[in-house]
Amino acid sequence: MNKPTIAVIGGTGAEGSGLAMRWAVAGYPVVIGSRSTEKAAVVSAELADRLPDDSAPLTGMANLAAAEAADIVVLSVPYSSQAGIIDQIAAGCHEKIFVTVAVPLKPPKVSVVWQPPGGSAALEAKAQLGDDVRVVAAFQNISAAHLQDLAWEPDSDVLVTGDDKAAKAQVMDLANAAGFFGVDAGPLANSSVVEGLTAVLIGINMRNKVKGAGIRITGIPR
Amino acid sequence: MNKPTIAVIGGTGAEGSGLAMRWAVAGYPVVIGSRSTEKAAVVSAELADRLPDDSAPLTGMANLAAAEAADIVVLSVPYSSQAGIIDQIAAGCHEKIFVTVAVPLKPPKVSVVWQPPGGSAALEAKAQLGDDVRVVAAFQNISAAHLQDLAWEPDSDVLVTGDDKAAKAQVMDLANAAGFFGVDAGPLANSSVVEGLTAVLIGINMRNKVKGAGIRITGIPR
Repeated sequence: MNKPTIAVIGGTGAEGSGLAMRWAVAGYPVVIGSRSTEKAAVVSAELADRLPDDSAPLTGMANLAAAEAADIVVLSVPYSSQAGIIDQIAAGCHEKIFVTVAVPLKPPKVSVVWQPPGGSAALEAKAQLGDDVRVVAAFQNISAAHLQDLAWEPDSDVLVTGDDKAAKAQVMDLANAAGFFGVDAGPLANSSVVEGLTAVLIGINMRNKVKGAGIRITGIPR
Repeated sequence: MNKPTIAVIGGTGAEGSGLAMRWAVAGYPVVIGSRSTEKAAVVSAELADRLPDDSAPLTGMANLAAAEAADIVVLSVPYSSQAGIIDQIAAGCHEKIFVTVAVPLKPPKVSVVWQPPGGSAALEAKAQLGDDVRVVAAFQNISAAHLQDLAWEPDSDVLVTGDDKAAKAQVMDLANAAGFFGVDAGPLANSSVVEGLTAVLIGINMRNKVKGAGIRITGIPR
């Protein structure tokens, strides 16, 4: 079966680039989206150069075109950009799985949990996109630090929340394809906790002088 | 140095009993608190019987007397009982470390994150107890399933939140003494996320048909 095409909007950033590379290696065609068509083309060519020859194609387009070209749209941008970028790409997201990686953080105290007005970034995305888009939240707790190192094997899990079980299962597959272990963490309402965990992990990084603290669920079959 | 005496209010329940036993084994004198003096006496005698001979004393008293007798007060009761029990024991908590284990859950959907009016059970406890009590939140994510089995070695961590660093350090020591690894998870404001994680873990337990899912922080020195 052909694998779905993934758009990584914000795929020129550290986390988006790392996920894009890992999915291309796992056989998913990837289109990186950027505000600038040129930047998308340059970065995707650079990333594609670093992949093994048998990887799926990794190309680049402007944000809306990338969303339109994909079966699954992954938004990997800072929370402060989420609403604006969704405005740009919403027309390309109808009936698709939409994954947001965004984490609401309130500077300067980014290690203190902060909840946005809509309850979570993912709930706000769902309210903005409407009911015909299957919104899933995932990848909020992973560190970009080692993601582009394809030999690095994560020991942390990806908590996946969403209200559509089939969409959530596909995103758990994407987590596994990127080298993590995807865990069904319940309905999209639970995204508030998963997003908030990132602020907690930022503080744990600071206090432990590390960069890549993550979380792992214990006591479950793998 | 003599170890501080710990009151475990609600120590006749599964989680409180398990923690009480583990702390007594680790050399902390423990006083179990219950609404009923008689129940406290009976249960503490039963638990003490199961401990190695070189354990610290494990005794039982009514809730307020237990709090008064202790240096550190641990409240291990359901969220719905927290406010009422704090009313009973507040007079015995002045200037002490107060640890709440409570998790706000909203039946029937206990696997969906629910935040109480005060932001978290721990923030509500702090508002109720006042500024001269050093409130710390911990142990919300651990499962009672294996806790009373003293040979069981947990592989999960205890996220500890609080606004008083010295108090938090002592509670991290208590987590370690109970066989877990205590992790400083930031200020008490972050307790909302740690409490909410329990709802997520309840759902993970249900979906995976297990009883003791927990969390572990990866990527930090141990």
